[in-house]
Amino acid sequence: MNQQGILSPETFLSHWQGHRHLTRRVIEAFPEAQLFTFTAAPPMRTFGELAWECYGVAAYTLSGLVTDEWPAPDLNGPSPQDKRALLAAWDALTARLDAELLTVPPSRYDEMKVMFWGTMTAFTAAIYAVDNEIHHRAQGYVYLRALGIEPPPFYERGQVPVSA
Amino acid sequence: MNQQGILSPETFLSHWQGHRHLTRRVIEAFPEAQLFTFTAAPPMRTFGELAWECYGVAAYTLSGLVTDEWPAPDLNGPSPQDKRALLAAWDALTARLDAELLTVPPSRYDEMKVMFWGTMTAFTAAIYAVDNEIHHRAQGYVYLRALGIEPPPFYERGQVPVSA
Repeated sequence: MNQQGILSPETFLSHWQGHRHLTRRVIEAFPEAQLFTFTAAPPMRTFGELAWECYGVAAYTLSGLVTDEWPAPDLNGPSPQDKRALLAAWDALTARLDAELLTVPPSRYDEMKVMFWGTMTAFTAAIYAVDNEIHHRAQGYVYLRALGIEPPPFYERGQVPVSA
Repeated sequence: MNQQGILSPETFLSHWQGHRHLTRRVIEAFPEAQLFTFTAAPPMRTFGELAWECYGVAAYTLSGLVTDEWPAPDLNGPSPQDKRALLAAWDALTARLDAELLTVPPSRYDEMKVMFWGTMTAFTAAIYAVDNEIHHRAQGYVYLRALGIEPPPFYERGQVPVSA
């Protein structure tokens, strides 16, 4: 990086967890009966499936950042159509992210990595995980509105670590 | 910032413009007749209105970053229900962003700013503008699907400045 950085690893952790906290609230807002059955615009997937994708991308990306190994992703992991299982996996990953993300050497984010979907910096992969979650969560907002349910405010990111 | 930064101003510019390029494609994908009339889930706004909001937040944030003045926003600016006017404003802001963003002193992003909607760092305000756009654009994806139109792939960010 040939100029001063504008984002610390601590602030990135806070940013990521803040979005994950909001996504958790959106998962919770779905009635159990609709989470894995409803779509506002076929052939779009249900929000339960989209949320499992967000979970999988975040878990893959965290492991890549921490281990610096970027294998082909396992896209056939268990993703039970069960709200409680989804939330339990979500919370376990939240704890892992808190425990592990700041062990990543900051210089790693600038390095190019060869991944299944192309060659990019580790930072690009990391912010992609966050952006992909914002993208699919926002689709969940439309689904909730279509179900007559008010989603949580977009700007509320809940109790997240204090940024550095 | 008490630890090494993981995002350069140049990469942030590329990140922001890449998202704005994709949003422009989503605006273009809407038929003129639906852009300011269709909503997939009332009382949600039309995508034309959401896109004008994204434009306004980005313009406000760029001006704040560049001038370091953060006045109460003018929420009553002109936002004609006209696709050509929206795209013309979008393109003018794209040029401004390219010309102006890297004039912002990198140290400014870490400073706390008192804004209409709260006190936060300039970086938090800047990434909020991007995230808010990802959020509303994703809602546009659902609208397009509901209209039977395939949206552009989320991962395509088009011709954007090469990151640093």
